Amino acid sequence: MATKEFSSVKFETILEARDRIKGYVSRTAVVTSTTFNRLSGAQVFFKCENLQKTGSFKVRGAHNAVLCLSDIEAAAGVVTHSSGNHAAALSLAAKSRGIPAYIVMPHGSPETKIASVERLGGIITMCEPTLAAREAACEALKLKKGAALVHPYNDVRVIAGQGTAALELMEDYPDLDVLIAPVGGGGLLSGSAIAAHGKSSRISVIGAEPLGASDAFESMAKGQLVPLTSPVTIADGLRASLGPIAFELLKEHQVAITTVSEEAIVAAMKLVFEVLKLVIEPSAAVGVAALLDSKLNLSGKKVGVILCGGNVDLDKLPWIKRLKI
Amino acid sequence: MATKEFSSVKFETILEARDRIKGYVSRTAVVTSTTFNRLSGAQVFFKCENLQKTGSFKVRGAHNAVLCLSDIEAAAGVVTHSSGNHAAALSLAAKSRGIPAYIVMPHGSPETKIASVERLGGIITMCEPTLAAREAACEALKLKKGAALVHPYNDVRVIAGQGTAALELMEDYPDLDVLIAPVGGGGLLSGSAIAAHGKSSRISVIGAEPLGASDAFESMAKGQLVPLTSPVTIADGLRASLGPIAFELLKEHQVAITTVSEEAIVAAMKLVFEVLKLVIEPSAAVGVAALLDSKLNLSGKKVGVILCGGNVDLDKLPWIKRLKI
Repeated sequence: MATKEFSSVKFETILEARDRIKGYVSRTAVVTSTTFNRLSGAQVFFKCENLQKTGSFKVRGAHNAVLCLSDIEAAAGVVTHSSGNHAAALSLAAKSRGIPAYIVMPHGSPETKIASVERLGGIITMCEPTLAAREAACEALKLKKGAALVHPYNDVRVIAGQGTAALELMEDYPDLDVLIAPVGGGGLLSGSAIAAHGKSSRISVIGAEPLGASDAFESMAKGQLVPLTSPVTIADGLRASLGPIAFELLKEHQVAITTVSEEAIVAAMKLVFEVLKLVIEPSAAVGVAALLDSKLNLSGKKVGVILCGGNVDLDKLPWIKRLKI
Repeated sequence: MATKEFSSVKFETILEARDRIKGYVSRTAVVTSTTFNRLSGAQVFFKCENLQKTGSFKVRGAHNAVLCLSDIEAAAGVVTHSSGNHAAALSLAAKSRGIPAYIVMPHGSPETKIASVERLGGIITMCEPTLAAREAACEALKLKKGAALVHPYNDVRVIAGQGTAALELMEDYPDLDVLIAPVGGGGLLSGSAIAAHGKSSRISVIGAEPLGASDAFESMAKGQLVPLTSPVTIADGLRASLGPIAFELLKEHQVAITTVSEEAIVAAMKLVFEVLKLVIEPSAAVGVAALLDSKLNLSGKKVGVILCGGNVDLDKLPWIKRLKI
């Protein structure tokens, strides 16, 4: 296999990604709910990436990136730094291809995340919990092992892979008026926008972001990247700064960003457990909170919502008041 | 429409129930999981009745019973006593036919259950929390309103309806070796046994029961109904005594009963949240606990498990230790 390289992401890039990762990732279910229709006034279609392998959409981008490598590149393995869903996703993608995945994780990463990477065969290097230490450890592994970096979101192969979730949803429901996806680093949102606009010229794509980590909102408003400093949100998957590649794509596709409060995120998360009987993580609830926010005026519209993941600490569900001792 | 009456439940009764309730209830998803396959050694197929309307399989039996009434009978409405899933299910079934549902609920019923019945249009009568008071209130409504009693499980129409979940599963996977369903009053389990044996002569049907409410286990062992006194289990849906109609059917179909501990129920429930990303209630976890119990020796078998419901108090998940004040 020869290396696949892309300068940017087009609709065709996502169609190719879909074909490339087929058989490695699940075509996830789409669920509907009379209760959510009633509450939002819209006709809602939830794309269940919480039911995806490893519990998040991240396996889509990770597989596409790993399968784009030439055989020679692949043999040396892949490397990334992540304390979250991308770590498990890249471990599985590397395992699928039979190559090593070197995962740099900061001290203090949740035990369950570490265990999940180990179970999937990822080779873990612990480091100090700073961005500098993470990047240095990553760089060292690149040099020492010759491993290829697979960034969690600032990578066109990854963005193309993430776009396949929205592509599947649009294949099932081509007449959606609005598509909502959460935004952290922007891989899912930018990929979704390209996929959605490739299938429909009239669909609006909306990024949902926590108020306490609203760098995408600010970046789009100012027309220049505003780095995220000290995010304060329960949505751990969205504490990343919007990446430069995604930023350009979001501008090109005129994606709107809406922000939601922490209270709205927790309420939306509990409501999904209660009504849809689905376990989602706080990042996925951000999109649901946007759906339920009356300021978006979704009444009468057909709305797709990507439930991005379901990896949550079940001992610390955010609506349960625990007494401190 | 004329009244449909049955003396017993045959496979054909379930086929008729399936056709009768079609369009009123969901054909629920069946999910698989490599993790559960690895843990059990079996190939497992989960039938997701937690995703059913009103969050449990109970709408199947309730709709079948309501749709079996003649127009004249139906006009006077239906009545039942229940603090659980049957109350919401009968309310919805009555609403589907445009007739009143009189629901007797004991004082102390969870607020969420009361709210759910109200939202579905059920007309609630509160009573003292004793079986005698519940039956008396039910009888009074029968006399006063002329309403038809729909018992939660000791009713052939209800049993036939509940059997349609297993029927759907067997239609999708006809070569199952084992089918596991939880047992409380026995409506689901007996209906499942008839459906399974109608589709396959070689399938084993196993009822899963909490150790702290093991009247079905004892009744089958002794060959006579042993009433359940003071059940002690978190599985609130299984605190009912096995009904006489179900008991006869379980004997006829040589259904085995297995018991599981409270610890196993809680562990299984948490594992389903964690791995399947599905919200289930403790009663549904009883079947999963049986699946994971090595004493059943399911290695290499194809096993269906009915996840009976997903209505659980999300503020009181049983694995979360809460400090008492």
